[in-house]
Amino acid sequence: MSATTAVAPLRIGVIGVGRIGRMHAGLIAHQVPGAALGAVYDPHEPAARGVAEELRVPAAGTAAEIFDSDLDAVAICSSSDTHVDLLLAAAEAGKAVFCEKPVSLDLRELDRALGAIDAAGVPFQIGFNRRFDPAHASVREAVVSGAVGEPHLVRISSRDPSPPPLEYVKRSGGLFLDMMIHDFDMARFVTGSEVVEVFACGALRIEPSFAEAGDIDTALVTLVHEDGCLTAIDNSRRAAYGYDQRVEVFGSEGMAVSENPRAHTGSVLTAAGERREPNPYFFLERYLPSYVREWQGFVDAVKNRFTPPVSTVDARAPLVIGLAAGRSLREGRPVRIEEVQAT
Amino acid sequence: MSATTAVAPLRIGVIGVGRIGRMHAGLIAHQVPGAALGAVYDPHEPAARGVAEELRVPAAGTAAEIFDSDLDAVAICSSSDTHVDLLLAAAEAGKAVFCEKPVSLDLRELDRALGAIDAAGVPFQIGFNRRFDPAHASVREAVVSGAVGEPHLVRISSRDPSPPPLEYVKRSGGLFLDMMIHDFDMARFVTGSEVVEVFACGALRIEPSFAEAGDIDTALVTLVHEDGCLTAIDNSRRAAYGYDQRVEVFGSEGMAVSENPRAHTGSVLTAAGERREPNPYFFLERYLPSYVREWQGFVDAVKNRFTPPVSTVDARAPLVIGLAAGRSLREGRPVRIEEVQAT
Amino acid sequence: MSATTAVAPLRIGVIGVGRIGRMHAGLIAHQVPGAALGAVYDPHEPAARGVAEELRVPAAGTAAEIFDSDLDAVAICSSSDTHVDLLLAAAEAGKAVFCEKPVSLDLRELDRALGAIDAAGVPFQIGFNRRFDPAHASVREAVVSGAVGEPHLVRISSRDPSPPPLEYVKRSGGLFLDMMIHDFDMARFVTGSEVVEVFACGALRIEPSFAEAGDIDTALVTLVHEDGCLTAIDNSRRAAYGYDQRVEVFGSEGMAVSENPRAHTGSVLTAAGERREPNPYFFLERYLPSYVREWQGFVDAVKNRFTPPVSTVDARAPLVIGLAAGRSLREGRPVRIEEVQAT
Amino acid sequence: MSATTAVAPLRIGVIGVGRIGRMHAGLIAHQVPGAALGAVYDPHEPAARGVAEELRVPAAGTAAEIFDSDLDAVAICSSSDTHVDLLLAAAEAGKAVFCEKPVSLDLRELDRALGAIDAAGVPFQIGFNRRFDPAHASVREAVVSGAVGEPHLVRISSRDPSPPPLEYVKRSGGLFLDMMIHDFDMARFVTGSEVVEVFACGALRIEPSFAEAGDIDTALVTLVHEDGCLTAIDNSRRAAYGYDQRVEVFGSEGMAVSENPRAHTGSVLTAAGERREPNPYFFLERYLPSYVREWQGFVDAVKNRFTPPVSTVDARAPLVIGLAAGRSLREGRPVRIEEVQAT
Repeated sequence: MSATTAVAPLRIGVIGVGRIGRMHAGLIAHQVPGAALGAVYDPHEPAARGVAEELRVPAAGTAAEIFDSDLDAVAICSSSDTHVDLLLAAAEAGKAVFCEKPVSLDLRELDRALGAIDAAGVPFQIGFNRRFDPAHASVREAVVSGAVGEPHLVRISSRDPSPPPLEYVKRSGGLFLDMMIHDFDMARFVTGSEVVEVFACGALRIEPSFAEAGDIDTALVTLVHEDGCLTAIDNSRRAAYGYDQRVEVFGSEGMAVSENPRAHTGSVLTAAGERREPNPYFFLERYLPSYVREWQGFVDAVKNRFTPPVSTVDARAPLVIGLAAGRSLREGRPVRIEEVQAT
Repeated sequence: MSATTAVAPLRIGVIGVGRIGRMHAGLIAHQVPGAALGAVYDPHEPAARGVAEELRVPAAGTAAEIFDSDLDAVAICSSSDTHVDLLLAAAEAGKAVFCEKPVSLDLRELDRALGAIDAAGVPFQIGFNRRFDPAHASVREAVVSGAVGEPHLVRISSRDPSPPPLEYVKRSGGLFLDMMIHDFDMARFVTGSEVVEVFACGALRIEPSFAEAGDIDTALVTLVHEDGCLTAIDNSRRAAYGYDQRVEVFGSEGMAVSENPRAHTGSVLTAAGERREPNPYFFLERYLPSYVREWQGFVDAVKNRFTPPVSTVDARAPLVIGLAAGRSLREGRPVRIEEVQAT
Repeated sequence: MSATTAVAPLRIGVIGVGRIGRMHAGLIAHQVPGAALGAVYDPHEPAARGVAEELRVPAAGTAAEIFDSDLDAVAICSSSDTHVDLLLAAAEAGKAVFCEKPVSLDLRELDRALGAIDAAGVPFQIGFNRRFDPAHASVREAVVSGAVGEPHLVRISSRDPSPPPLEYVKRSGGLFLDMMIHDFDMARFVTGSEVVEVFACGALRIEPSFAEAGDIDTALVTLVHEDGCLTAIDNSRRAAYGYDQRVEVFGSEGMAVSENPRAHTGSVLTAAGERREPNPYFFLERYLPSYVREWQGFVDAVKNRFTPPVSTVDARAPLVIGLAAGRSLREGRPVRIEEVQAT
Repeated sequence: MSATTAVAPLRIGVIGVGRIGRMHAGLIAHQVPGAALGAVYDPHEPAARGVAEELRVPAAGTAAEIFDSDLDAVAICSSSDTHVDLLLAAAEAGKAVFCEKPVSLDLRELDRALGAIDAAGVPFQIGFNRRFDPAHASVREAVVSGAVGEPHLVRISSRDPSPPPLEYVKRSGGLFLDMMIHDFDMARFVTGSEVVEVFACGALRIEPSFAEAGDIDTALVTLVHEDGCLTAIDNSRRAAYGYDQRVEVFGSEGMAVSENPRAHTGSVLTAAGERREPNPYFFLERYLPSYVREWQGFVDAVKNRFTPPVSTVDARAPLVIGLAAGRSLREGRPVRIEEVQAT
C-alpha cells in the first residue's frame, strides 16, 4: 500500500461493478469522507465504462491494472468464484483489500487466500455490512457495556422479500452459505463468543424448483456458543410483508433488540383497526446506512493502521458454521464445529 | 364519621346504582382493599334491590337511611341534579363523601355545596378518575420529578367512540361541562398550574341533531396557565377507531406522553402492511384500573385523615374553565377566568 | 353431572385453594357469567375456611363431599400429585371437570386418568389458559383465517420474571414439564399441527442451586411439526425486565405476532432517549383476562354439551413433547415423538 | 426555458450555496433522476468555487450569468432578502424556478414577485419540502382517499432540537414566519382546505435573549379552516429529545398520523424499563428523503409541462396566515384572514 497521510483521501479501486459493486463505487465516490474512488474494473467492459463515466473515474482494462496502480486499496465485488485469485493478487500487490462475502465456498480455498493475506500483512475487511447497521450495532453495544449482562439466548430472524432465481441458487452454495452466513456472523458479533455446535432443520416450502439445486428455502438453526449462550436463527427466502431483519440478545440483566424499521412512520386508524406500512422491501434500502458506515470503518482502519473491524477470522468462522449446518441438515444430528475444522 | 382503625374496613354506602354507581359498588365490594360495601340506595327500588342481592348488602329505603347509619362514607353516584342536596346532607351527617362529577352545572350551587363540605370538614373526593390512570399519572410524575422540566406545551385529545343520545345531551350542560371537563382537570393536574385564560372553537360535525340542544360535538380549546404553559385540548363525540385518550406534556427538559393502549397486542403483517387492533371501545374497559386506584386513594386518605387527592378546589376549577370556554365560544374571543369567577 | 338449563348457573366446586385455586374460585364467584361457586375444599382446613368466608360459600370437609354433592362441575387446583386420583373420582362421579396442568408428570398415570375421563364421557378441560389470551388467540385466528397462509416458522419466547424456589423445582418435573409445557401447547395451538420431532438445548445460567434438582433454567428447543412447520421456543427462569411472553407465526402469506403488553402506555423522552415501562411483572396480572375467558370457554362448552376447547388430547400431547425434550437434552440428539409414545 | 425532451436531463443552476443550497446542489448532481447540475453561483466566491469543484460544474461569476445561460431551471437558495429580485429575473429570463421559502416576509413584495412569475408563465415551486416526506404525505393520501373521512381536527407539533442564534432570529421575521410557516403549509396541505381565522398564543420560555428581537420561542396557534376543520399547531425552538415533527388528521371515519421516526430501531429492556433512542437531531437527517422527492416533483412537472406541486398560491397563503398569527398575538384576539388580505 502506498503511503497515506491523515489528510489525503484513501484512493480505492473497485473490481466488479454489478449491482453491489456499483453501489460501493458510488458510496466511495460521494458519501465516504476520507475516501476517493480511483478506478473501476469489470470483465464486462460496457458496465465498467458506464460506471466510470457516471462517476468520472478511469475504467481499467484489466484487474491487474488496478493492482499495479498506485491506488491505496481494492474493493473486490466481482462474482464469488473470482475472490480467491483476486485476494492472492491483492496480497502480492500489498494493497489493502475490502472483499464482498464469501471469500470462497470451499474452506481450503478460503484458507489459502486468507493465509496469503495474513502473511502479507495487508489490511483486510470482509463485507458483513450488517454489523454496521445502527440498530444491530446498538445490540452489540448493549452487550459490551454490560447493559444486558451475560448473553443467555439470542434470536435472529432474517427473511428476504422474495426468492432469488434458480440459476443464482445453483451457484450460491445453498441457503446456509449464501443467506444465513450473515446471521452466523451476527450471532458471533453480538455475543462476542465463538460457536461450538450447530443443529439445523430446513424445508422447501416456497419455491419447489429449488429442489433441483438441492437447496431449501426455510430453515431454523440452533447454535451453541463457547460461553454457553444459545442462538436460534430462522431464515425464509420470502416474507410477504417485506424484508425482515431482527436481532435480539437476552441476558442476565436484560435484553437488547433491533426491530424492523417501517418504510415510513405514517399510519391510519379506522373502525377496522390500525394500518401501518409494510417493511422496506429491498436490502439496499434497508441497509444503506450500514454500507456507508462499513466503508468508514475500513477507511479509518487503513488510514490509522489498525486491523479492520471485520477481518480474516470473521471471514472464516461463518463459513465453518455454515458447513456444519449443512452437515447437520444432511445427517439429522447436532454437529460440532471441530468436525468441520478437521476436514 | 365514625371512628375507624387502620385495620377495620372503611364501610361505604352507595347512593345511585345506575351504570356508574353499580360499577363503584362492585369495586368497593370486591376489589378495594380496606373498603367494604355497607349498603346501596337507588330511587328506582328494583335497581337497588338487584345490586344489593348480587353484592349481598342491604338496600336502603331512602338516602336518609344511609346518612343516618353508622357507615363511614357515602358515594354519590345518582343523577347530577341530586348532587348538591346529597352533599349538603353528607356535610350535615359528617360522612366522608365521594361524589361523581359534576357537583353541579351551576357555579353558585356548587359553591353552596362545597362550602358546606369545607365548613363541616368532612373528607371529600370528586370523581376525576383519569388522574388515577397509570399512564396519565406517569405524565404527572414526570413533571413532579423534574424529568420534563418546566411545562411549556400540553396536548390533550379526548374522543369518545360514539355520541350519547340527544336526550342525554340536553341535560348534560354541553360538551365543555360534560366531556371536556375531564380534560380541564387533566390540564391542571399534569401541569400543576391553574388556568387563567380560555379560547374555544367548536363545531357540529357528527350529529346534526345536537343543534336542538344548542350543543357542539367537536371542539378545540386553548388554555393559558398561570405559569405561562399553553394547553391544546381537542374533543370529538365520535372516534371511528374507538376510545382515544392521550395526554402529553412538553417541557424544557423533555416530554412525557400517555398513549392509547391497544385492545390487545396482537398484529398481522402481510403484503398490505401491518394491521393492529383498534382502541378499546368503552370507557369502563379503558379506565377500569383508574377506578380501582381512585377508590384506594379515597380510602387511604379517609383512614389516614389526610385530604383526599382530588378535593373541593379540584371540583370547582374545571367547572369555571368550562363556563369560560362556553362564553369564549359564544363571544368569539379569549375569556379570562376571572370574568367567570366574578359572576 | 346434574341437568342444567341455559339459564341456571353452572355450579362449580373448587378443590385446592392455594394461589391459583383461590384465583379460580374468585373468578367463578364474581367474574364468569353463567357460573356460580358452589363450595371449596382444601386439605389445609384454615385455607379453605378463609376462602369460603370471603366468597360466602360452604367449605367442604373432604374432596369426596364435593364429588358427592349436586354441584355440576369440579375445578382441580390442588397439588399436581393429587390430580390423577381426583380425575378418577370425577370420572366416577360423572362431574364435568376443569383440571390445572399437569394432569401428571408420568405418561402412564396421565393415560390412566384421561382414559377414565374419556370412558365416562365427562366434559374435561385442561388449564392451558394462554390459549385464551386475546393477543395469542389473535395469532391462532390469523392462521385459521388464512391471513398468514401456511405456517412455516414459529417463534415463542417465555421468560419468567424470577425463578421459583429450589424446593418447588425439585417437585416440578423440570423446566420442560413445568414451564415450557405451556409453550409446547402454544406451538400446537397456533399452528394446528402436531409435533413429530424435538431437539433441546439447555443450560444452567441463573440459579446454580438448581443443579441439585438436576434442572436447567435456560433452554432453546426446536420442534418439527407434522406439516413441516419449524418452531423455536426459548425459556428463561429470569427476565430482568419482567414477564416476557411472545408468540409469532410466520407463513406463506405473512406473519402474526403477539407482543408483550407494557405495564402502562406512558413514556418519557429526554436527551437520553425514550424511557418506557418494563413489562408487567406477575403472571396473574399478565394473564388475568385469559383466565376469565378460559372459564367462559369451559362454562359454555359444558352448558351447551360440546367438547371443551382444550381437552384430553391437548392435556396429553405437551407432556409427550416435554418428555421427548428431556430425552433430547440428555442424549444430545433430536428425538422423534414416537420414541416417547412407545414407552 | 430551453426545449427539453423526455430523455434529456433538466439542467439546473443553483444560486446560493450556503448550507441548504449546497445540499440542493448535491442532490441535483447525484440523486435526482432526470436532473443535472449545470452551474452554481454564490456572492461569496470561495463558497461557489468549493462546491463547483466538488460537484465538477462551473461556478458562475454573477447571478445574471445563470439567467443568461441555456440552463433549464434555477434554484434560488440565497438569503431571503434576495428572493424577490431573483424571482423577477427568473420571470424575465423565462426560467423554471425553484425557490426556497420564504419568497418575502412582506406581502406586497411577495405579490410583486409572484405576480411576475404568474404573468411570465414560468413553472414555479416553493420549498415546502415537508409535503414530500413519505409519512406526512401518507396523511394527505389518507384524506384524499377518503380513509379518514371529512377532516374535523388536525394536530401538528413542530419542535426544533435547539434555537437558532439571536442574529438569525432578528432577520427571520419571527417564529410564525420563520418556523411555523411550514406548519401553516402543512395544515392547508393535509386538509385541502384554506384557513379563514387564526388565534395565536406565544411565550418566551427558552431563550430570554430573543426578547431583544421581539420574538417568542414557544407558541400554540389555532386555525379555523373554510370547511370547518380546526387545527392546533404547537412550536418550540428547543426539544431536548431531538427534532419533533408530527402531523395528525382526525376525521369522520378515522385518523391518519405521521409519527416521529426514531434515530434507529434498537432498544434495551432492563429492570429500569425500556430505553429507546431519541429522535434524529437534525432537520437534514430527518427530511433528507423529502428533499429528494421534492426535486423529483419539480423535475417531473417542468418536463411534463404541468404546474409544479407546490406553486405560487402555496407560497402566498402561509405568509398570510403567519401575518394573521402575528396580529392575533399582538392584539390578543382571533384574526380573520381577510383582515390581512386587505392590507
